Amino acid sequence: MYVSTKIVGVNVTRGKVREFFDNIALETILKIYVNESYYGAFLLTPDMLKEFVIGNLFSEGVIDSLKDIQKIEISKDIARVESTRIVSELLKAKRNLVEFSCVAGDIGELAAIIGRYRVSSDIMLNASTIVEVFRTLHERMPVFRATGCTHGAALLDERGEIDCLAEDLGRHNAVDKVAGFALLRGLNLNRYALILTGRETPQIVLKAARIGTPIVCSFSAPTLGAIKLAKALGLTLVGFVRGGRFNVYSHPERIRIDFTSRQSL
Amino acid sequence: MYVSTKIVGVNVTRGKVREFFDNIALETILKIYVNESYYGAFLLTPDMLKEFVIGNLFSEGVIDSLKDIQKIEISKDIARVESTRIVSELLKAKRNLVEFSCVAGDIGELAAIIGRYRVSSDIMLNASTIVEVFRTLHERMPVFRATGCTHGAALLDERGEIDCLAEDLGRHNAVDKVAGFALLRGLNLNRYALILTGRETPQIVLKAARIGTPIVCSFSAPTLGAIKLAKALGLTLVGFVRGGRFNVYSHPERIRIDFTSRQSL
Repeated sequence: MYVSTKIVGVNVTRGKVREFFDNIALETILKIYVNESYYGAFLLTPDMLKEFVIGNLFSEGVIDSLKDIQKIEISKDIARVESTRIVSELLKAKRNLVEFSCVAGDIGELAAIIGRYRVSSDIMLNASTIVEVFRTLHERMPVFRATGCTHGAALLDERGEIDCLAEDLGRHNAVDKVAGFALLRGLNLNRYALILTGRETPQIVLKAARIGTPIVCSFSAPTLGAIKLAKALGLTLVGFVRGGRFNVYSHPERIRIDFTSRQSL
Repeated sequence: MYVSTKIVGVNVTRGKVREFFDNIALETILKIYVNESYYGAFLLTPDMLKEFVIGNLFSEGVIDSLKDIQKIEISKDIARVESTRIVSELLKAKRNLVEFSCVAGDIGELAAIIGRYRVSSDIMLNASTIVEVFRTLHERMPVFRATGCTHGAALLDERGEIDCLAEDLGRHNAVDKVAGFALLRGLNLNRYALILTGRETPQIVLKAARIGTPIVCSFSAPTLGAIKLAKALGLTLVGFVRGGRFNVYSHPERIRIDFTSRQSL
């Protein structure tokens, strides 16, 4: 998912100029058609394309399970999906409604959607598990290590094991690849936390709720819209997992504090 | 552009849980209409909205100068622009063509666009100036310092001065705000480098070429599509400016090596 290309490196502090080969991330375009209708065009890192297509339809609420897909064909830059579901403009309108309304803070208007996607899970994660998984996350991302240019997403179970890790130039795409990978393997996403390297936005929170992961954790920060939406959807939002600490922005009841010296200010 | 909200902080290494107020970045939605036609909806950090609208139209090639805009009205989440230019679907089609074609590596098809936007400037930047500006860039970004959640973009002149700094949740938006700010002040963008915190993608390179900044420098990495497009457009692409060094991916002739001990491998 990367190529080696010649570049000029300038080291100002050491007073050196040299030419060398460096690894550069590749991107490709994938146009998706569902039941002959144009669904969208996506710029993404060219791997896990089938997982991406399935995961995107799932995380955007177009399909509810693998059963809703009859056939997928991917050739070059086009993916054709046959689905039993009717994919109409309504779905796109709904998606936009959610993105925009949660930004504007008008969660009330979204009652129907929140009712449908509200997460419910008694999964508990140890605080130490969350810290530990982020300590080694970048080491497990080969394209990031080669290029420094990708976001990562993965699933984390209660024992602290990472599964379904995906990388992509786009943080939404990485989540979709994970979702599709998990769906193809029949995982119960209700028992996993979604872990990310990218920022937590309303769109990411909604994707997590739609695929059913009750906890989202990231290196990065959430926006206010993401926090509002996570609260409304019953989702645990954890951010800024760095240097042995993290913040919990909503529904902290799923985080088990597994250290003895506890202090509340 | 941020609010303070109560969160739960968990410090695993110190064995502490506490509630505190933290600064969270705000986002808003802005729907832009040009000559009564819907142009697009954008999620962005709610400041510099007028700059953003003007800059986006400029960086996307819809307008060529401020003269092409007769009137702008922004109220709540809607911006209405009256322009002497006819903004048709053609423009969107062209934009897509460029994004997608350069990703696929088919620069040949883009000859007309490359001819129109090819950059030409004899600006020279000292290597030490590039290193120095990134050393303090985050300190000059108040929303980033408060929230850790924004990208920054700015203009850098040959003397090493930073101008028009803008922040936004979206890296494209930050560039558009800078472009609009510069246009309103009548700056000759041909004499500035565009500096960024975010990744260098084909879309960013194309925006730089359209607004006329001949050099783009970032903390982050470029994609292969960005490098190909920068080479074709005659634009100097600098990335990974970190720890006293950086890489030059295209047209290094605009970088002046201002240290004496030079070594070429």
